[in-house]
Amino acid sequence: MPIDIPDVVIDRLPLYYRLLARLELEGRAVVSSQELGAELGVTPAQIRKDLSYFGRFGKQGRGYSVARLTEELRSILGLDTRWQVAVIGIGRLGRAIASYPGFEGQGFDIVAMYDANPKLVNTDIDGRIVRNVNQLDADLRKQPVDIGIVAVPAEVAQDVVDTLVHAGVHAILNYTPLRVQVPDGVELRHINPVLFLQSMTYHLKRVRADR
Amino acid sequence: MPIDIPDVVIDRLPLYYRLLARLELEGRAVVSSQELGAELGVTPAQIRKDLSYFGRFGKQGRGYSVARLTEELRSILGLDTRWQVAVIGIGRLGRAIASYPGFEGQGFDIVAMYDANPKLVNTDIDGRIVRNVNQLDADLRKQPVDIGIVAVPAEVAQDVVDTLVHAGVHAILNYTPLRVQVPDGVELRHINPVLFLQSMTYHLKRVRADR
Repeated sequence: MPIDIPDVVIDRLPLYYRLLARLELEGRAVVSSQELGAELGVTPAQIRKDLSYFGRFGKQGRGYSVARLTEELRSILGLDTRWQVAVIGIGRLGRAIASYPGFEGQGFDIVAMYDANPKLVNTDIDGRIVRNVNQLDADLRKQPVDIGIVAVPAEVAQDVVDTLVHAGVHAILNYTPLRVQVPDGVELRHINPVLFLQSMTYHLKRVRADR
Repeated sequence: MPIDIPDVVIDRLPLYYRLLARLELEGRAVVSSQELGAELGVTPAQIRKDLSYFGRFGKQGRGYSVARLTEELRSILGLDTRWQVAVIGIGRLGRAIASYPGFEGQGFDIVAMYDANPKLVNTDIDGRIVRNVNQLDADLRKQPVDIGIVAVPAEVAQDVVDTLVHAGVHAILNYTPLRVQVPDGVELRHINPVLFLQSMTYHLKRVRADR
């Protein structure tokens, strides 16, 4: 497998995978880079270039085999296996995340939930018992997880992330507004709605100006 | 103002803005592209190129004026004004979004909340009365909003988005797993945690293989 695939390419692959999986369900055999591009708002050239990192999937002028490309992407992305996920912080947001439809169907099993609030610890949420966050390190050493989803208050976010990293978790999805830090070798993604809104106001400003 | 700035550049600007605003708070006068790059995980060349779309902010070898660059980004991104936001879908996720700290401080005012659940309609949540989603179109025509945040069940997501677009909303943040469609001229961003997780499993797979 090639070593230095740009992160921006990796980040687009789940979009390709999702579209292809849908086409496969619809019974489609072949798809062109033009059609993939039109559906995803990416140029066909970009799609061909992205997929070329992983070998030759398409035949010139014949399009891609939907079944083969879906299977390859599933394997490349590690979606042919199951991943253990812990959610830390079970307030409104953490609970909404924990009940998000689609994790299980995509191979992500939420196996543990943690909170610091004594009123929540040891309660049952969606069939799982909430653990005390002060047990997080000890628990992970006995029962490792692959991914930590962090939805705690910003003030304690870095502490929780440090605990996860220290206990061997290699992937963290950060829902807090804090831009937490992780060492090299740990994958980190941030979900901060303010940044998404700010990337749209640039365009909105021009809409207002046109009125 | 230049016309064709790539969306990937626009999407990075909020990150620059946030970092610069923090440096400004810390009393910093000047910052180099090297330092910005190191903090954000982007090459200094990329930063210089991104910012060059908007004019000449830095002096060769002297770095950027933090105050001036922050102010320019604030203006470019439209953060020097206030934006009206409606949240549609006030389940767990919608409530978590509505109570997200940081919207107001960044100029985003949640002015309306909608749901279809009769138990929620007309109740008070965080000082706002939840409106019936069947009033959405009529309300927006009387009292327009700039941005719609959609956190409804996937089955009705496209309908809600169509209503927003039809009533003149030009920016939509989609929290549903459905990849909704909008016409040209409407900005759309998706927040789907599964896609973030899938972009990390590619790396996790290699971690497992190294064990």
